[in-house]
Amino acid sequence: MKWKRSERLVDMTQFLMEHPHKLIPLTFFASLYESAKSSISEDLTIVKETFEERGSGLLVTVPGAAGGVKFIPTMTDADVKVVAEELMEQLSKAERLLPGGYLYMTDLLGSPALMNKVGKVFASAFADEKIDAIMTVATKGIPIAHAIARHLNVPVVVVRRDSKVTEGPTVSINYVSGSARRIQTMVLSKRSMEKGQRVLITDDFMKVGGTINGMKSLLEEFNCELAGIAVLVEAEHEGEQLVEDYLSLVKLHEVNEKSGTIALTEGNYFVKGGSLDESSINN
Amino acid sequence: MKWKRSERLVDMTQFLMEHPHKLIPLTFFASLYESAKSSISEDLTIVKETFEERGSGLLVTVPGAAGGVKFIPTMTDADVKVVAEELMEQLSKAERLLPGGYLYMTDLLGSPALMNKVGKVFASAFADEKIDAIMTVATKGIPIAHAIARHLNVPVVVVRRDSKVTEGPTVSINYVSGSARRIQTMVLSKRSMEKGQRVLITDDFMKVGGTINGMKSLLEEFNCELAGIAVLVEAEHEGEQLVEDYLSLVKLHEVNEKSGTIALTEGNYFVKGGSLDESSINN
Repeated sequence: MKWKRSERLVDMTQFLMEHPHKLIPLTFFASLYESAKSSISEDLTIVKETFEERGSGLLVTVPGAAGGVKFIPTMTDADVKVVAEELMEQLSKAERLLPGGYLYMTDLLGSPALMNKVGKVFASAFADEKIDAIMTVATKGIPIAHAIARHLNVPVVVVRRDSKVTEGPTVSINYVSGSARRIQTMVLSKRSMEKGQRVLITDDFMKVGGTINGMKSLLEEFNCELAGIAVLVEAEHEGEQLVEDYLSLVKLHEVNEKSGTIALTEGNYFVKGGSLDESSINN
Repeated sequence: MKWKRSERLVDMTQFLMEHPHKLIPLTFFASLYESAKSSISEDLTIVKETFEERGSGLLVTVPGAAGGVKFIPTMTDADVKVVAEELMEQLSKAERLLPGGYLYMTDLLGSPALMNKVGKVFASAFADEKIDAIMTVATKGIPIAHAIARHLNVPVVVVRRDSKVTEGPTVSINYVSGSARRIQTMVLSKRSMEKGQRVLITDDFMKVGGTINGMKSLLEEFNCELAGIAVLVEAEHEGEQLVEDYLSLVKLHEVNEKSGTIALTEGNYFVKGGSLDESSINN
């Protein structure tokens, strides 16, 4: 089949979206569509300009024999604000209040559409960092970790509270959980990471930062480096903050069980994060 | 901005891929692109034909005032075979063998690219079923459940082994785990599901089927219906099989620790599953 430009544009868009952060040689598209490289270049210019107009991604061109194009999913600050607002609206509902001042968030973490957007928010914010893996702790961080990982095209590493026979040999550490100041254990399969990898840590909720600090200690045990910390909801609290350099989408200020009110603002994303342009991407 | 056809095709493809199984009125696209409905119809015909040529999805048109188009992700049997073969090649590596005849699969479940394909395989197989939610058990089924859910645009419900304060009130059941015949517990937040919902159960691994049977019992407690069962790897074994009507992508026949061999074949997908056409989709 000889592909027309209009068909190539549709198919190419689909292909690029399914292969983010991956270098695709122009010759791949040329042979896939039985078209001249010059036609493919023109197609890619249209795709690139449309993605940029929408703010949905960058198409980075790497010149030379080993070159090609790479699709980098991005989000405009305006689109990130929409996601943060959706999240705040959802989280502010009084029926989410649980005894002890906890918030029910499980349904939000179970929404693939919302998780897809959250993943794109953080993948966009860390698109110019070298990242080899996303780390989270079971269970609730997993959907966020996978959503970020899919947009960055890197593997997910899941830390557990207990060791399992199906994980093989594990490395275990003790850490101090934040608010309760209890000693807890974290385990990670030895096969999960290699020395020297750069790791983005993520979780659904952070208060004092004990769990995230535990994951940072695990990184040290594996001789890996911290590439960043992405948190869906951070909670304000009195006293020491164990983690400093993180990005959060939403901040929980106060939960009042008596009056049924939940006070939320935007997280520090809008202070620390921000839009990318092509020049900041490391090829 | 006035959008050209070429730009509309790129942007429309991106939009449809991010909103699977969702009815989009033609007027939405017409106003988004400031174009006549007749032009949008022509665009959609090009998108539809390209998706069909590639076998990557159907674009179903719902006529009438409340109508529009719906993108249904699909996979050809040939593409599913490629996924099954990739999985078998990966799983057959001797270094995956763990003491007790277990297989290390955690890295595969941590690969977002592979999970995306696996999700599409099962979303495609169950695209013509009415499905309201995907259910799995923590921890390893979560990436598969989210991948299927994203392609079907339905929420994920995660069953846990233990109850957590952040889940609110829960329903708990006891079930008999398959091979070991031990009594185990499963809990699910009461808020997770509503009466009458149709639920697709999924997990990474199934032997006798005890865990899946436990999830079926939970569905009964919630007065929900079983819409189907999707398993990444099923394991052959002697004796009773607790679950009958399931779809598997890969079948594990034998694990020989001594010789370091792992015998695998395709799962029953290629017998029970199969391609869709537009006529089988319930609008």
